[in-house]
Amino acid sequence: MKKLSPRTRVVTGAVLVAALGAGTFGAMSASASSPAAAPAAAVKADTADRNLQQTTHLTVAAATRAAQATLDAAKKENQRISVAVVDRNGNTIVSLRGDGAGPQSPESAVKKAYTAVSWNAPTSELVKRLEQAPNLKDIPGTLFLGGGAPVQVKGAPVAGIGVAGAPSGDLDEKFARAGVAALGR
Amino acid sequence: MKKLSPRTRVVTGAVLVAALGAGTFGAMSASASSPAAAPAAAVKADTADRNLQQTTHLTVAAATRAAQATLDAAKKENQRISVAVVDRNGNTIVSLRGDGAGPQSPESAVKKAYTAVSWNAPTSELVKRLEQAPNLKDIPGTLFLGGGAPVQVKGAPVAGIGVAGAPSGDLDEKFARAGVAALGR
Amino acid sequence: MKKLSPRTRVVTGAVLVAALGAGTFGAMSASASSPAAAPAAAVKADTADRNLQQTTHLTVAAATRAAQATLDAAKKENQRISVAVVDRNGNTIVSLRGDGAGPQSPESAVKKAYTAVSWNAPTSELVKRLEQAPNLKDIPGTLFLGGGAPVQVKGAPVAGIGVAGAPSGDLDEKFARAGVAALGR
Amino acid sequence: MKKLSPRTRVVTGAVLVAALGAGTFGAMSASASSPAAAPAAAVKADTADRNLQQTTHLTVAAATRAAQATLDAAKKENQRISVAVVDRNGNTIVSLRGDGAGPQSPESAVKKAYTAVSWNAPTSELVKRLEQAPNLKDIPGTLFLGGGAPVQVKGAPVAGIGVAGAPSGDLDEKFARAGVAALGR
Amino acid sequence: MKKLSPRTRVVTGAVLVAALGAGTFGAMSASASSPAAAPAAAVKADTADRNLQQTTHLTVAAATRAAQATLDAAKKENQRISVAVVDRNGNTIVSLRGDGAGPQSPESAVKKAYTAVSWNAPTSELVKRLEQAPNLKDIPGTLFLGGGAPVQVKGAPVAGIGVAGAPSGDLDEKFARAGVAALGR
Amino acid sequence: MKKLSPRTRVVTGAVLVAALGAGTFGAMSASASSPAAAPAAAVKADTADRNLQQTTHLTVAAATRAAQATLDAAKKENQRISVAVVDRNGNTIVSLRGDGAGPQSPESAVKKAYTAVSWNAPTSELVKRLEQAPNLKDIPGTLFLGGGAPVQVKGAPVAGIGVAGAPSGDLDEKFARAGVAALGR
Amino acid sequence: MKKLSPRTRVVTGAVLVAALGAGTFGAMSASASSPAAAPAAAVKADTADRNLQQTTHLTVAAATRAAQATLDAAKKENQRISVAVVDRNGNTIVSLRGDGAGPQSPESAVKKAYTAVSWNAPTSELVKRLEQAPNLKDIPGTLFLGGGAPVQVKGAPVAGIGVAGAPSGDLDEKFARAGVAALGR
Amino acid sequence: MKKLSPRTRVVTGAVLVAALGAGTFGAMSASASSPAAAPAAAVKADTADRNLQQTTHLTVAAATRAAQATLDAAKKENQRISVAVVDRNGNTIVSLRGDGAGPQSPESAVKKAYTAVSWNAPTSELVKRLEQAPNLKDIPGTLFLGGGAPVQVKGAPVAGIGVAGAPSGDLDEKFARAGVAALGR
Repeated sequence: MKKLSPRTRVVTGAVLVAALGAGTFGAMSASASSPAAAPAAAVKADTADRNLQQTTHLTVAAATRAAQATLDAAKKENQRISVAVVDRNGNTIVSLRGDGAGPQSPESAVKKAYTAVSWNAPTSELVKRLEQAPNLKDIPGTLFLGGGAPVQVKGAPVAGIGVAGAPSGDLDEKFARAGVAALGR
Repeated sequence: MKKLSPRTRVVTGAVLVAALGAGTFGAMSASASSPAAAPAAAVKADTADRNLQQTTHLTVAAATRAAQATLDAAKKENQRISVAVVDRNGNTIVSLRGDGAGPQSPESAVKKAYTAVSWNAPTSELVKRLEQAPNLKDIPGTLFLGGGAPVQVKGAPVAGIGVAGAPSGDLDEKFARAGVAALGR
Repeated sequence: MKKLSPRTRVVTGAVLVAALGAGTFGAMSASASSPAAAPAAAVKADTADRNLQQTTHLTVAAATRAAQATLDAAKKENQRISVAVVDRNGNTIVSLRGDGAGPQSPESAVKKAYTAVSWNAPTSELVKRLEQAPNLKDIPGTLFLGGGAPVQVKGAPVAGIGVAGAPSGDLDEKFARAGVAALGR
Repeated sequence: MKKLSPRTRVVTGAVLVAALGAGTFGAMSASASSPAAAPAAAVKADTADRNLQQTTHLTVAAATRAAQATLDAAKKENQRISVAVVDRNGNTIVSLRGDGAGPQSPESAVKKAYTAVSWNAPTSELVKRLEQAPNLKDIPGTLFLGGGAPVQVKGAPVAGIGVAGAPSGDLDEKFARAGVAALGR
Repeated sequence: MKKLSPRTRVVTGAVLVAALGAGTFGAMSASASSPAAAPAAAVKADTADRNLQQTTHLTVAAATRAAQATLDAAKKENQRISVAVVDRNGNTIVSLRGDGAGPQSPESAVKKAYTAVSWNAPTSELVKRLEQAPNLKDIPGTLFLGGGAPVQVKGAPVAGIGVAGAPSGDLDEKFARAGVAALGR
Repeated sequence: MKKLSPRTRVVTGAVLVAALGAGTFGAMSASASSPAAAPAAAVKADTADRNLQQTTHLTVAAATRAAQATLDAAKKENQRISVAVVDRNGNTIVSLRGDGAGPQSPESAVKKAYTAVSWNAPTSELVKRLEQAPNLKDIPGTLFLGGGAPVQVKGAPVAGIGVAGAPSGDLDEKFARAGVAALGR
Repeated sequence: MKKLSPRTRVVTGAVLVAALGAGTFGAMSASASSPAAAPAAAVKADTADRNLQQTTHLTVAAATRAAQATLDAAKKENQRISVAVVDRNGNTIVSLRGDGAGPQSPESAVKKAYTAVSWNAPTSELVKRLEQAPNLKDIPGTLFLGGGAPVQVKGAPVAGIGVAGAPSGDLDEKFARAGVAALGR
Repeated sequence: MKKLSPRTRVVTGAVLVAALGAGTFGAMSASASSPAAAPAAAVKADTADRNLQQTTHLTVAAATRAAQATLDAAKKENQRISVAVVDRNGNTIVSLRGDGAGPQSPESAVKKAYTAVSWNAPTSELVKRLEQAPNLKDIPGTLFLGGGAPVQVKGAPVAGIGVAGAPSGDLDEKFARAGVAALGR
């Protein structure tokens, strides 16, 4: 798949300003279940920018599109799966429990996605690393079974897509890759 | 406290490119506990930028500095507290268990920080909202007690600082505000 | 053990055959992560139909469509939310973490959906029942805040849609209802 | 919102009406611990039938009968066990802690049942699959020990029966199969 | 280590021998999932009887019968419920998820049973005690809603029966009492 | 298992009265944190004795004595350990965190005790069973490391004693056996 | 808070050597379940004493004695309770499940002890503070019911004793105080 | 273990008074979130000093300094990690989630620190012990991967530093050792 062109660089000045202007952090809906209060004066000072870093995430629209492409790929092969998309911070963005998929599949999918984004590699490759470091698989949140694929920006991981429920991890991972591919189109 | 000048806007073009070039996502240390493998060709396609969004976070250096300023403020008043910094995604960045602080304080601090950043308001204010919506306090991860303060960029929440262990929530929150203030300097 | 006779086929002949032919139970992908084994002879006897009942569920396609309609309704009003769809058995079918929604929102959305489908009523109505039975809210998995709406078939609940992250539960529930409405079209 | 037209009734008219008339979804007892409220008008629109799928479950009467047949089979051989029946969605329908069975047996029985229904195979067979995919056993909710048997309808899994507490997994599984057999009578 | 002398036999000779001969503790099936090993000599010394106490429990057969009587009573009134039986040690003996009962009902039933046996009173009565001690309801494992009833031997609690899913706690408790009554016949 | 003869019935009038007079069930302190209420008439019917079974437990006095003998044995050899006593139902009766013992030791001790009483064998023996059934160790609550010893009455398990913190499981188990031995004196 | 004078420095050279010689930290049993390895040279550098502080704890012998005095006090009044001792760091040192005590009592006792040591006050007093700060009771690990008493050294908390199972919190707390009193003798 | 000489007694009058005067136990901030109450007279009796022991801990200032030295060491080598400091009681004192570190790293770091302080050895050495006792790794809270290093006082463990996120456990542990080294300066 093609690399990002300069023009598709993740965030260029104006775009980001706009994004923030549009309330990336929920400024307009910051309070919940009660009328929005004016933030208290005493703690409202903005932090200086040297204190800040940006992280890159899939939009929920993109993540959902990828998850659906994953389900579609499985459906074509008559397989019943669940799929999840987890971001680089380990938070689940999308979880879809597929029709007729086994009850173990939704959580397995989340864990495979988590594993793929944590090490920035497909879980089928990560399984091999257990030969040298077998206890990697004891790390909380992980699952070392084929079916997880990282989503990357310039080689760095921004998300993982995990699939579970097909008769083999290879098949699961094939569907996960279809989800990744849908993001490059 | 002063607002961000245009020049301190969260991310301007070149800065972000550099940040990503420097491997914001851990590209150089993507694999763990085994030799870095080359990412598998099949799933390496970069996602298109229309699929992406940026979120703003405190650096760990800034968050630690804020937490220490919080501890220092408490020490001046002879109070024993714990402090935590939680980001807008709900992940804990810094947790410090203060000398002699009660055993309940570290987790309380995390929950107050989480609550403040979730609603972008000091927890002392959020307590008042329970009058209309008392069950807000049943939301997992939250604690509706004074002692949490949001960290904001242009009014939007990027983190929360939570404090627990002092004889009152007001005192806890005073120390949390000292932590926020340290970020504006 | 003997196979099901035609006369004991689950539900009625053609309907079930079709349902199974369409793979409702994942017969074609019954094994995971290893080649599909032939089911062991000894335990393969089909159960008699008097032992069976059917339950009705949204397809994942429908649930995802409803969730996206929910997100769209929120976006129109510039609100940042998360949404979940939970089935009548209490299992989460879809969970979407919206862009910029607070970290507390995904789990809150699941719990509101769970609450709505459990009692077959909008959570804004269920809140009122706490006046007579305040401890209802201590039931595990529930959240008694506006924002959950049941999906019904002939008045019976088949799913719940839950929303969290807007400034009020009423607003959350308005978006959940938009998701329900999308299923009726 | 409009009601379902007759033509969009779930599955086919008579069959479903009957099912619903029999109260599959608890329409008559939809609310709990407070007088049944009329469902709120605003969210009551029935979903269209193209959005629906049916899943097949054991009745609680059948599942209890199977569990008791399992206990009886063990008693004949002087073995003390616990037994569980889990449905295809992973929910526990019946759990019986046998007289004198070890304290580890109830949860083990649930996990074996869960494993058998997830992969639609006896757990004694599933153990063998670990040779190729040893980390399957790290999937949450599973237990790869003999003693679990699937309950099938036309080859598709509708439930699992799990047994624990006998001196060997083979013996546990013999009793589980006796439970399955009771459903075919 | 020395064996128990006749005089130190647990409780009184004949009774206990009979009880043990009848296998109260699973002596014949003490090991699980592997051939029964002879207990190691070094730790086999029997404990002296002054160290022992007896506790009374429902048999699983009785508990299952009570649970089914509970389901039957609900069915007569067209109510869909789940039921659980918990012993005086807090362990769940029987859990039945009723057809069409809400997803919140199985765990609610367990907690009501647990609450009733802990305080040896119907949960509808225990709710009233919250007036003086409102935080009783924060005790882990409890649920202060009508629907739990104690099973007693000479006034002392040996088990609790809990019911959930009917439109009111009073109705739930009526069915639980039907289960208790079945034990007295 | 043969039926109890009248003479060996688990609870006959006089015997039970005595047992209750001795307070087996806490009849005098059945209610907590509020004045003892008279049990409600409606549910007070005593269960018939054919529904009952007795189980044997260590008194807390005996269990504490055993645990202290365990600590003493370790102290003589200059070892720092924690110790736990778990009953046949899997409930922890005594847990003592020894001076200077590692933080992992209290929970390890509980799990070893649980394992020993579940299979009625020392955990050092149970470790060997993993050769044939390696996944036994995945059963929740267990720990397959030397250091657990069963307490028996006529060969049947009534409790387990678990020890953790010494440099080897053999040493841990030596101390556990010392605790068992103290019960035989 | 004034600085430590040299003479009151928490740990001065000789004192610490002696304390360690006495094995406070388990130097002689530092490794578990495998032969003691010599600590690796590279990380063995001792930390400087300005980095250290001392905390005061009950010995396990003292804590057990207090717990037994608590049980004895309850027994005299024919009450069945459980008791726990928790240290100032929140770790449970002793947990005893009393004969015939309700199943809810062991965990309640731990939480009351935890609450008492966290705020250095009897839980019966702490209940009153909920009038001003009702959400204090949402802090994880706490239970705001009478029955917890702090153990103090010169007014500072070193442990808490918690009791549960008697008909009132006042009675529970009376027994907890008896445990505290046993430490002063 | 030899007895403490009077001079080294864990708590002698004057020393303890001084230590407490310096506020070791938070006497001045003992109550939280409400005005400090005078401790209740009835339970205020100080415990006798023969009941006490002292344990040694890093100050939070020292632990934070060590954690930052660890992050600095990683930064020099362009590695993205998280770091944690856990005390000998198993409580986490400091947790820092490094910029760009994988989502699995914060909890992995805590577990490595916990493992190192529990056995007083680097986790890279502890991994080797699994050859003889493979189930050590099933002990709750542990992680047997390189990256944890103990902090010692005269050879006894007072804390552990854990690191996760670098491409190998050896590299993780190198950074952890840098944190330990910072305490010796």
